[in-house]
Amino acid sequence: MKAKIVITPKKAVLDPQGKTVQNALEHMGYSGVTGVHVGKYLEIDLAPGTDPAAARVALDEAAHRFLSNPVIEDYRLEITD
Amino acid sequence: MKAKIVITPKKAVLDPQGKTVQNALEHMGYSGVTGVHVGKYLEIDLAPGTDPAAARVALDEAAHRFLSNPVIEDYRLEITD
Repeated sequence: MKAKIVITPKKAVLDPQGKTVQNALEHMGYSGVTGVHVGKYLEIDLAPGTDPAAARVALDEAAHRFLSNPVIEDYRLEITD
Repeated sequence: MKAKIVITPKKAVLDPQGKTVQNALEHMGYSGVTGVHVGKYLEIDLAPGTDPAAARVALDEAAHRFLSNPVIEDYRLEITD
């Protein structure tokens, strides 16, 4: 079982890394890009037999407490088999 | 229209950031975590009316050429509405 956490900067927060990638894409000739957001991706392997509901609660807390910065970042948690 | 690119270290490559997160999770009392992989996440906004097939080809090339390091990283590209 796996958990996937995607952490992205909030829309209202400046994203200089995304802006840089957007500029680079334009300079390299890739047109039609109107915005880029750069975030973090965490893939967590869980021991077989872990209760998905309990894992969701624990990882949601972990993501909120120390994997993301809730002031400037949003996160999305997904548990898959 | 949006493109999502997830860049992860190849399984055979050392992932010290992932190992650190795994240790941190264990020390914070979250058990049952058998592995953590940390990667990058890019969300690319595309101009409305962009041809999805052409965007996929262009972004696949961009991901391979300069958004990821194909020697040590894998990437996954997804185009959504």
